[in-house]
This record gives sequence, structure tokens and C-alpha cells, in this order.
Amino acid sequence: MLILHSFWLSLATYRVRIALNLKGVPFEERAHDLSTGAHHAPEFKKLNPAGAVPALEGGTLKPLTQSLAILEWLEETCPDPPLLPHDSEGRAIVRSLFLLTAADAHPLVVPRVQARLARQFGSDEVAGRAWSAHWFREGLVAYEAQLAPGATRCHREVLSIADVALASHLVGVERFGVDLAEFPRVAAVGASLFAIPEFAAAHPRLQRGAPDVQPD
Amino acid sequence: MLILHSFWLSLATYRVRIALNLKGVPFEERAHDLSTGAHHAPEFKKLNPAGAVPALEGGTLKPLTQSLAILEWLEETCPDPPLLPHDSEGRAIVRSLFLLTAADAHPLVVPRVQARLARQFGSDEVAGRAWSAHWFREGLVAYEAQLAPGATRCHREVLSIADVALASHLVGVERFGVDLAEFPRVAAVGASLFAIPEFAAAHPRLQRGAPDVQPD
Repeated sequence: MLILHSFWLSLATYRVRIALNLKGVPFEERAHDLSTGAHHAPEFKKLNPAGAVPALEGGTLKPLTQSLAILEWLEETCPDPPLLPHDSEGRAIVRSLFLLTAADAHPLVVPRVQARLARQFGSDEVAGRAWSAHWFREGLVAYEAQLAPGATRCHREVLSIADVALASHLVGVERFGVDLAEFPRVAAVGASLFAIPEFAAAHPRLQRGAPDVQPD
Repeated sequence: MLILHSFWLSLATYRVRIALNLKGVPFEERAHDLSTGAHHAPEFKKLNPAGAVPALEGGTLKPLTQSLAILEWLEETCPDPPLLPHDSEGRAIVRSLFLLTAADAHPLVVPRVQARLARQFGSDEVAGRAWSAHWFREGLVAYEAQLAPGATRCHREVLSIADVALASHLVGVERFGVDLAEFPRVAAVGASLFAIPEFAAAHPRLQRGAPDVQPD
């Protein structure tokens, strides 16, 4: 049984949870409270020296980290249903869309960056939220330009890891109050994705540790 | 013939240049001066709506963006010599090492982030350099913990995209004056990588637009 090390708020973990659901791979989740610094504990650093979730463990598998590396591993080891196109050009486009949100926007808003903004520039909660909103919004500008009119998926109307990453980006968009009115194509794809049961069940607000979820 | 759209300082473009060199793929480079905002021009946005280099064009190929997506495309279309291991677990580890530098550190130091720090927090050049140095240093802490003693490559002593990304990270490390003394394993791998002709020839400081390079 795979073990997914997670934190309910983590957008990167949300991506992995969606993909595991879509591929029907059974997994147990182990929640770590990153809000109290659980990821700085030596025991956790053995799992991931970078002190971040997600990390995926199972049997003889060395703990895997980084959402994209985990999704590619899942694609190779559990290819059905595919979350990458079959042609190299399509795969490149899907991966670039994934990275447009997950690498160009998300790393800018994580807690360690907020902590550094506070320490180096005296950023407070309001400024930190404005910073995050800016980057989530920036990610949408380039994204909107790459979606087809009327699209319900990011690429060729087939579900892919680009959709997985866009869903996680849109959770951040909602969290930081970015207005989607300027981005109708993104909004349409997002509405379609959140209606998929495997995406809905994986949503951060439904995970253990979230404010409205009862502890076990 | 492939066309690589580039800017001499770009660490992401450096990664693609190394991989093209290693695989012996002929390409022409087209330099864009990002320091004067060439990436904001409508013509450039047609190439990459995100307004960033690298972008790779060729024949009927839709322009490909994002260094990792381009490297994966190269690996699929020009598999020799391989820059990913043959087993899924090894591939996952190499990809996670790549992302540890290219996604967790590099997006934090690019010009658009520096511009936002200046606008939102009044950051100046000194503060901007301190910010960049912090993130390049942070990337090294987690990296050092994942390298084997005596290693000359990032993973299993075989050249991979993890080495490509580490070389680009180390160019940033040098640019921002981060001391490598605390990171002897990283320093050893780096010294070994920069001695490889395909890495050396791709170095940003040797590219058109760099201060010591004569214009054509």
C-alpha cells in the first residue's frame, strides 16, 4: 500500500491525490501539520531532506518527492487511464502547461517564501496575501492565452496532468480571492474539472486537518 | 533545424543548451534581450504567452516552452545518449532532483520576481541579490543531503537531467556569491560537470549578449 505524506493545505499534495484517485491506486494518507513546523523535524527530513510534502512511500520504494516527479512515476507504473498524450509534442505541451502553474507560480507562494518575505521585507499577512494573489493571477494570464475557446480540458479535450495542475492553481486562486472574470476560458475548464468526482474528493478543504473536517 | 530562443543570462535556456550539446542535436540560437523587455513584445508573446525563454521551434513543431518539458521532449525524440535512467524509480529521483533546483529555487529569483519585490516591498539591488542568494543557498542544503560521498554525478554516477539542472543552479550560486564551502559534495559534482565540454561550451558567460562576448 502506498503512503502519501501530506498536509491538507498543500496544493502539490492535492495534485498527487487527484492522480491517485483517477488511476484508482489505493493509498493511505499520513497528515503532517506544516503549520506547526512538522516538516522541520529530523524524522521528516529523513523522508524528504527538502522538508516538503508530498512524499510518496511504498514497500521497497525510496520515498519519492516533487509532485511532477511523482505524477510521471505514476504514469509509468500505472499507465491507465493515461494522464499524458501519446505523442511527444502533445506531452511537451501538457508538461509545459503543468509547469506554468506548478513551477512558475506555486513555488512563489509557499510558507517558506512567506516567512522570508516577513523576515527580509517586514511583510505581514495582508502583504503576503497580496503577493500570493499577484502570482496566482499572473499564472492565469499566460494560461488563458493557451486555452481553446469552449474548452473543458487544458489540452485537446482529454484529461491530463495539465488539468491536475490547473485545478490546484484554481484552489489557490480561490484562497487568495483572485477574480476569474477576466479569465473565462480558465473558469470554464475549472468548473468542468471540479465536477469530476476524483477531483472533488481530493479537494484540500475535505482533507484531515482542514477546519471543517472532524479529526479521526 | 531547431531554433532555440534565448537570453544569455537565462539559466533555464542554459539547461536546454547543455542537453542539445550532449545529444549532438544541431540548433541555431536566437538571442532576445530580456534586459530591455524584448519578452514583453507582442511578437514574442506569440512564441510564448508567458513571455519567457527558453522556447524551442523547428519545422512544424509548435513552439515548446519550459526547460523540463523541452528536455523530456528531447529525451523522447533524441534518446541517445540518455539523460534519464531506464527504471521508473531512478527517473523519479532524477526528476525530483531537477525540480529541487529548477522549480523550488530558480522561479524565486527571475527578473519578474525581482521587479515585484521592488514594487511591493521597495527592494533595491542589494536586497534583491540577498534574496536570490538566500534561495540558491537553500536549494543547496537539501541537495547536499541527497548526494553520495565522493560522487561526480547527481545520481548513480551517470549523467542525467539532474546534472544539467545542478550546473544551472551553480551558475546562480556563483553569480550571487553563495559560498560552496559548506556543500563539499555539491562542489565536487559541480567541478566535474563544468569540465565536460558540452557543459563548458553552453555556459551563459560565453553566449552572445554576455559582457565579454563580441557581438556578431
